Amino acid sequence: MTLSPETQSSLIRLGGQMMLAGKAYEYDRELADEIGPRLTGSANYVRATDWAVAEFTRLGLSNVHKEGWKIPATWEPETLATARMILPHEQRLHLESEGWSPSTPDGGVRGSVLYLADLRAESLKAAAGQIKGAIVLVDNASFNTVISKGFGVLFDALDQVGKDGAKAIILGIGTTNDAPSMIGVTNFVGSIANVPVGNLGKEDTLLLKRLLERGAVEHSPVEVEFSFKNRIHKNVTVNNVVAEIPGTDASGDYVLIGGHLDSWHPGTGAQDNGTGAATVVAVAEAIKASGLKPKRTIRFVLFGGEEEGTIGSIRYAQQHAGELSKCVGVFVTDTGAQAPKGWYDFGRADESDALNAIKPLLDSLGAGGVTTDGEYTFETDESAFLIKGVPAFVLWTPVDKYIQIHHKPSDTFDKVNQRDLNLGAATVGVTAYAFADAGNTLKHYSAKEVEDQLKAVNAYTEYQDMVAHKVL
Amino acid sequence: MTLSPETQSSLIRLGGQMMLAGKAYEYDRELADEIGPRLTGSANYVRATDWAVAEFTRLGLSNVHKEGWKIPATWEPETLATARMILPHEQRLHLESEGWSPSTPDGGVRGSVLYLADLRAESLKAAAGQIKGAIVLVDNASFNTVISKGFGVLFDALDQVGKDGAKAIILGIGTTNDAPSMIGVTNFVGSIANVPVGNLGKEDTLLLKRLLERGAVEHSPVEVEFSFKNRIHKNVTVNNVVAEIPGTDASGDYVLIGGHLDSWHPGTGAQDNGTGAATVVAVAEAIKASGLKPKRTIRFVLFGGEEEGTIGSIRYAQQHAGELSKCVGVFVTDTGAQAPKGWYDFGRADESDALNAIKPLLDSLGAGGVTTDGEYTFETDESAFLIKGVPAFVLWTPVDKYIQIHHKPSDTFDKVNQRDLNLGAATVGVTAYAFADAGNTLKHYSAKEVEDQLKAVNAYTEYQDMVAHKVL
Repeated sequence: MTLSPETQSSLIRLGGQMMLAGKAYEYDRELADEIGPRLTGSANYVRATDWAVAEFTRLGLSNVHKEGWKIPATWEPETLATARMILPHEQRLHLESEGWSPSTPDGGVRGSVLYLADLRAESLKAAAGQIKGAIVLVDNASFNTVISKGFGVLFDALDQVGKDGAKAIILGIGTTNDAPSMIGVTNFVGSIANVPVGNLGKEDTLLLKRLLERGAVEHSPVEVEFSFKNRIHKNVTVNNVVAEIPGTDASGDYVLIGGHLDSWHPGTGAQDNGTGAATVVAVAEAIKASGLKPKRTIRFVLFGGEEEGTIGSIRYAQQHAGELSKCVGVFVTDTGAQAPKGWYDFGRADESDALNAIKPLLDSLGAGGVTTDGEYTFETDESAFLIKGVPAFVLWTPVDKYIQIHHKPSDTFDKVNQRDLNLGAATVGVTAYAFADAGNTLKHYSAKEVEDQLKAVNAYTEYQDMVAHKVL
Repeated sequence: MTLSPETQSSLIRLGGQMMLAGKAYEYDRELADEIGPRLTGSANYVRATDWAVAEFTRLGLSNVHKEGWKIPATWEPETLATARMILPHEQRLHLESEGWSPSTPDGGVRGSVLYLADLRAESLKAAAGQIKGAIVLVDNASFNTVISKGFGVLFDALDQVGKDGAKAIILGIGTTNDAPSMIGVTNFVGSIANVPVGNLGKEDTLLLKRLLERGAVEHSPVEVEFSFKNRIHKNVTVNNVVAEIPGTDASGDYVLIGGHLDSWHPGTGAQDNGTGAATVVAVAEAIKASGLKPKRTIRFVLFGGEEEGTIGSIRYAQQHAGELSKCVGVFVTDTGAQAPKGWYDFGRADESDALNAIKPLLDSLGAGGVTTDGEYTFETDESAFLIKGVPAFVLWTPVDKYIQIHHKPSDTFDKVNQRDLNLGAATVGVTAYAFADAGNTLKHYSAKEVEDQLKAVNAYTEYQDMVAHKVL
């Protein structure tokens, strides 16, 4: 990447603006505290899109608008879930409806618990007689028997459990404090599961497993009951929100700064992904406040449907397929406000080379690093662009704090560190602006190059799984 | 303490029995997993006392029986609590009924939230006009304004808030993951609070406080609603469980090994105090299994009502006042199964001197230490004995894990480490047996000596508070 002295100076000005007067913290507070959980397509999600349109408009951005796409179903809890163990003795359980689960029948669902240690097709076939009529419990150990083949295969297995006549499924995948941890049983596309799926806290899951193990000795069943009602609307239009700061040249080239606006229901999505959405708006504000005019257009996009399989960004890439060749770089944030270490480049050496042009500036923020770690490929909204060969970057932060709170009741604004959020936003703003103002651009990868790239970062199996499940 | 070579040899035999074949882990599993939460006087508590009587009888102990005492009210949740914020927007809150709270009125309690930063009498007087009709939120910062004077003063303040016409009180004293953390608003004696008291998770508490702070600027109220029904029985007899291994001499002297059998409702009381109750039974079993005959009687006591103000042990000491002079030592466990460091001696140098006789054995278990730390004085069932001058010991373990899980949903059996529990039980068994078999005994303190002792460990204010509130 070649940068003029003027661009270098602009980047310093912009970075200073973001570090000292950036507004990401306040935007995240508004999203998390004042709007709250933002399930894709829910009333709160609609409020969040209205908020984003109003903010982008207030900031004087151009071409502010919503872009709709259909989702098979939107979903949000209508009642608080209740759950208890009935046998071998009565005890409250800490369970919430998993996302995109149907409601339980009136009066709830009740039955004996069957723990399935193995979700491979042949094991499910062997267990089919036991599954029928049971409430099936699966945990991370069960997931591990199939997850190496991709989430689609996991969702197929859960779907098969429903087809085999299970009364319900309980996911015991939480990691702490009897707090459920959502994954969304939507088969990646926003469809409703075929049986009620509850998500149970860690300690209660371990209790059921211990009692089942004991029951194998003493022949006493473990029986549970749970009940919840969810508000489900079929075939709904969900909006991404788009706004621009126009470039000064006439090339039509643009950089895209994106993040998802939706969240899970147990918390308020302050870290996942209030921080990313707030970053997008805060970068827009800082560029406007600095008075800088980038050579290329900067497009800001807030996506919906990320938690259900990055649906919003996939639809965006499909709707904008004709102009993806004009996109010189995509910059996404989705790992919360921990002090950034740099960028995920998904194995593209030309991306890390390009970043060298601004490495001293990023080093000053502690964010001069690059990782080729492919474990987080397809984890968020970069994937729809990456597979089309667009240079894609995801902000790289530590994930230890993220892992403790994401998709959980503890994902709330008190977890957000203002300085660390500003560091992340400054990193996004400076990097994306450099790409918007640079003398040259990176090439787009061909389909073959993308395939090689995915293999190099060990993400090809996951990619094939998503293609096989008609996600990508 | 003088110990014969035969006693030293017995201690080694007993310690080996407990470490290699001790049953505390299995007893704790039965209490936590198979009986569950054991609120004082609840149906589960009664099951636990029946279990203890059956176990002591099966082990061949003598004089196995229950000893009853009256409590003003027993309490357990009848329905799952539901709670939400209504203004400035609707959002689920993570709230449970505090112990010994009355039920909310039909339809729940609803109102504006008032945060009280200061619970001192003069501050409450100044705020009385605002308190009337409000739902009063208090947190640890509020508690800290009065807690140095003792829990009785804190409970008085909460009582005053009810008298001032608050609709309800919300305690925001949890420390993690939106999980409530119980204290019991019983004024130490097992009475029912004068208004409904909800216990709110940490993150929700912080949300309400942030919104209230904002509201002070924007004049928007923060309104919440919550509902729960509790099963309350007035004036109930609760039983301690007592059993003995008779001594070979005719002195009538005895050592007492005790722990509380009751627990809070959010978890299953596996650490608090399943580990302590299991230790008591496991020590009895190990002594019987070893075939040892102690010189003095060893009395095993499982107390109720500890969580409501150590009521069971206080009543026990009152009922047995006439023979406390025969009690040569009390050994209590209540900080969960972390590897023991030794004993709390509450500042009695003669106690730590006595322990020197078995220090090599305890050092082998990592438990040869003694602490004079008075912070944990009056925290559990030693207090009723300590204030009567009886040599009292509480097992000393690290409390970092305990602090994370006690009184919370996460207090479950998966937290218990079998080896560490065996180490604690062996420490209790070996130490108590040494006192039961020693050539000499420690003196009882006079009232004046107890007073000096309490002053020396900075526990005198707390003692006075308990006396002033008719607890001791």
